[in-house]
Amino acid sequence: MDTAAFAPFDRVAVIGLGLIGSSICWAARRGGLARRIVGYARKPETRAEAMRLGFLDDVAESAAAAVDGADLVLLCTPVGALAALTQDIAPALAKGAIVSDVGSVKVAVVEAVAPHLPEGVVFVPAHPVAGTEQSGPAAGFETLFDNRWCILTPTPNSDRMAVDRVAAFWRGLGAMVDEMTPERHDRVLAVTSHLPHLIAYTIVGTADDLAEVEKSEVIKYSAGGFRDFTRIAASDPTMWRDVFLTNRPAVLELLGRFTEDLIALQRAIRWGQGDILHDHFTRTRAIRRGILEIGQDTDAPDFGRHAHDEPTPRGEAAPERPKERG
Amino acid sequence: MDTAAFAPFDRVAVIGLGLIGSSICWAARRGGLARRIVGYARKPETRAEAMRLGFLDDVAESAAAAVDGADLVLLCTPVGALAALTQDIAPALAKGAIVSDVGSVKVAVVEAVAPHLPEGVVFVPAHPVAGTEQSGPAAGFETLFDNRWCILTPTPNSDRMAVDRVAAFWRGLGAMVDEMTPERHDRVLAVTSHLPHLIAYTIVGTADDLAEVEKSEVIKYSAGGFRDFTRIAASDPTMWRDVFLTNRPAVLELLGRFTEDLIALQRAIRWGQGDILHDHFTRTRAIRRGILEIGQDTDAPDFGRHAHDEPTPRGEAAPERPKERG
Repeated sequence: MDTAAFAPFDRVAVIGLGLIGSSICWAARRGGLARRIVGYARKPETRAEAMRLGFLDDVAESAAAAVDGADLVLLCTPVGALAALTQDIAPALAKGAIVSDVGSVKVAVVEAVAPHLPEGVVFVPAHPVAGTEQSGPAAGFETLFDNRWCILTPTPNSDRMAVDRVAAFWRGLGAMVDEMTPERHDRVLAVTSHLPHLIAYTIVGTADDLAEVEKSEVIKYSAGGFRDFTRIAASDPTMWRDVFLTNRPAVLELLGRFTEDLIALQRAIRWGQGDILHDHFTRTRAIRRGILEIGQDTDAPDFGRHAHDEPTPRGEAAPERPKERG
Repeated sequence: MDTAAFAPFDRVAVIGLGLIGSSICWAARRGGLARRIVGYARKPETRAEAMRLGFLDDVAESAAAAVDGADLVLLCTPVGALAALTQDIAPALAKGAIVSDVGSVKVAVVEAVAPHLPEGVVFVPAHPVAGTEQSGPAAGFETLFDNRWCILTPTPNSDRMAVDRVAAFWRGLGAMVDEMTPERHDRVLAVTSHLPHLIAYTIVGTADDLAEVEKSEVIKYSAGGFRDFTRIAASDPTMWRDVFLTNRPAVLELLGRFTEDLIALQRAIRWGQGDILHDHFTRTRAIRRGILEIGQDTDAPDFGRHAHDEPTPRGEAAPERPKERG
């Protein structure tokens, strides 16, 4: 990557080459943010695929070898793997290196990573609030973080200059940057991300288990709303298992509130209280408007699905149209 | 509409000119399915807007006037309005006319409509499983039903030839057509549409009520999954109130199962049972694959949102990118 000879970082090591890791590499190349990017993934086939896809300058045979000499190390594995990974790379970290991550929880990540880092290495926890339902190195793309927020959660020991460099790096990837404490992050993301994922996983499972409605029917008529949930419920299972196990208190607290609210609506349905339902359904429209106003979703109807060509379903003839006679 | 002088129907009356009613008109014009389309909506401003938008040949000043002389009458109002509407139009219905509807529940619709129809008029209940989160006459578009299913739920009294003509009409609108009993329809749609909407309305309300997380934060970080739910929770409140009040038994039964499943996952989180979570999250991926295989959703990541230009958020500068030096 010779065009980036004077890039903000000299050698960036990316450990974990899934959707987020690979998208960081693509976006860093686009932005000229690193002189060299070296990657590592646990599975040899992932490493080979990453080199074939072309978003790395080098691939390393171990996490320790990848971080050797790096001035920025980005941990992009599921959260549950971070403690062991950090212990593994600690001896190889250069003095002055900045270590950051992309985990969807932050209190647990700080606890897993910080104690294992050698002196002279700064940890700047980060979480880009972006993603798709797809996983793996081939799922990444350079615009994933454009116009999305990346939340930094510096700890009392995070060096200010290191935080600013990581913030500049994320802006270079296309993101907007915010800062808050790890504790606040975990409470906020429990609402905007963790609870929605758990609910989506639940409802898709409930539908899957029904005996009286066949799976083929659930699939055929999914355009009535259900299909939206299946997208979220197709997200990476390991990553999400780790999120729920590591953000337990915030998720459990919210689940309690959600269930209470659901049961209140259920009661309104049972007793035919149409006004309660109508009031609730009217109130929820305002939040959608807020999201569209700050550009955090497309305002095209149905997420703009109608702009995409949808294939004719397999095993179904194209719909017949009556001949126009006249 | 002179090009459709020998169209399948001579005069189609559309009562209710919202998203579905207006989309039917646009798609019927595209397909040459009616010699004339006459519309009626309760509010004078909706009638005026419909004429301005240009999807009607005529607008009537009353529902009864609209159906006068029509060989196909399509009731496109919220389900709760159907009984009174049918009583209103019954004296004006021509002998031999076919009456159909687009309601998201079917048992209650059959009960609301059929008893009020005069002899010689056939009722063919129908439900196009298609829509967007937008409402009103300006929200309609001619491709809304393309490659979507329309479910007909004939009653024992539905004349076979009338059912076939309504089926041909929906194929002409771009849809694929299925048939089932009203009872089965209501059980299937409770899963694929009614429960997802209730859950989405609930979670958005729960987030809205939180004191410790601010609404602005919920909106900012909604790309973590929450924003998907806000789209569904922006659907028409009156329509959805009526759906829940009229498909009560199926919705309540499903809600019981959903809550049970949610509490099982909640317990797995509390007790740190990672295997249970991982197994569940893996299983739910298969349903997504099924939906993509039969073409009932786009396989573009994130519904293809990244293909849309997203505006720079208000009040935020465009993200700074470090200058490339070199």
